[in-house]
Amino acid sequence: MTNRKRVTAGVLLIGDELLSGRTQDTNLAEIAKFLGPLGVQIGEARILSDNADIIRDTVKAFSERFDYVFTTGGIGPTHDDITADCIAAAFDLGISEREDALNELRKRYEDNELNDARRRMARIPDGASLIANPVSQAPGFQTRNVFTLAGVPQIMRGMLADITHRIEGGAKVFQITVSVSNVGEGDAAAGLAKIEGAYDGISIGSYPWFNEDLRGVNFVARGTDEAVLAQVKQDIEQMVADLPSA
Amino acid sequence: MTNRKRVTAGVLLIGDELLSGRTQDTNLAEIAKFLGPLGVQIGEARILSDNADIIRDTVKAFSERFDYVFTTGGIGPTHDDITADCIAAAFDLGISEREDALNELRKRYEDNELNDARRRMARIPDGASLIANPVSQAPGFQTRNVFTLAGVPQIMRGMLADITHRIEGGAKVFQITVSVSNVGEGDAAAGLAKIEGAYDGISIGSYPWFNEDLRGVNFVARGTDEAVLAQVKQDIEQMVADLPSA
Repeated sequence: MTNRKRVTAGVLLIGDELLSGRTQDTNLAEIAKFLGPLGVQIGEARILSDNADIIRDTVKAFSERFDYVFTTGGIGPTHDDITADCIAAAFDLGISEREDALNELRKRYEDNELNDARRRMARIPDGASLIANPVSQAPGFQTRNVFTLAGVPQIMRGMLADITHRIEGGAKVFQITVSVSNVGEGDAAAGLAKIEGAYDGISIGSYPWFNEDLRGVNFVARGTDEAVLAQVKQDIEQMVADLPSA
Repeated sequence: MTNRKRVTAGVLLIGDELLSGRTQDTNLAEIAKFLGPLGVQIGEARILSDNADIIRDTVKAFSERFDYVFTTGGIGPTHDDITADCIAAAFDLGISEREDALNELRKRYEDNELNDARRRMARIPDGASLIANPVSQAPGFQTRNVFTLAGVPQIMRGMLADITHRIEGGAKVFQITVSVSNVGEGDAAAGLAKIEGAYDGISIGSYPWFNEDLRGVNFVARGTDEAVLAQVKQDIEQMVADLPSA
């Protein structure tokens, strides 16, 4: 018996630079692609400014609402790195410099480089377990169902490897895409709704695309049953073939 | 006298495809770059699934919390396009097909192409004003302080032109960047915190970057006073020059 329950995650992308237009987030899609094969779907993501109260309250709410929570950003050595304190506050936990985290930093830094700023990266909420950072050593950490990761994409990606074994996923969601050009979304809408209505547990989205000299639509169906999805794909292809304009 | 008050916006990016990793959002940064010169800062963004209750509740909460709200996605002709109904529900407004919106669609579609699906794009909440869509005609709309825009980036961008005149901005936020290589973030942290502490209304972020053979940090200071920012830039450059490792 495969596990068919729906398992969800919430994602919090933390940092003013993501809201000012300075930095384009890519971590959300990276986390989604990591979780999909594990049977975890992202239910909502939020991009938060560097505001301690909002980060704390959102972590707490997301921890109750989703099976897993991922945070990215704000765990470096500078004054604007406040995420670890916010996580501790969210769960009413103490936070202090930990020897296991300091040992990770020692793999990278000589003792004379381990100044107060860098030692801040060894401050971990009480009871949290470390998440290995193979790229730059300063660890992430897991507090209950919340995974706190770096914001720099290369470092974030490196940390995901030490999360896989901590996830108990549910039903995997598969998707099929039917991509067509020179078909109007509005011409296919009625047929598409009919197909979606004919199957339980299948959701179909319709995504128009453009390039310089071509336009078209991607019809994407998602669901947990690959055999049903294969049938849906055939239905969509047939529906498109039957359109007068196709 | 320039207007010095802080004016904020919340952004709601709507669509399962943004959460599944299928589609990489670029609309948030585009809206941020549009709003910055108008004197509006984005306070928070959320990426929501196609769930009518959550969209409705979030629109309502954001409308109260921020001066302006932007939504992208879910205003096309297919069954998964539910944003207009959610906006109406958020404000307890009726919604119906409107002649002014239908006239916009008629610029693009012949009468025989204006089927039920496409006419859905003329359903507008009562009292909302239309936002022109120079790319594909189907209009966006403004309901109180909420701007509802298309999700396709080219179309979304085209709609922004008809929003500028509706925005009453406040203080503009400027930023300066000092980009350095071969400087450790942790070595600069103490100096950086000291500089931030010396100025009111200036926030400084520290963003490490990597490429194949180089690593470094961008120090970014943001604030509303360009003269003060110029002084902050000099201070950061001096601080970096004084580092033993620089």
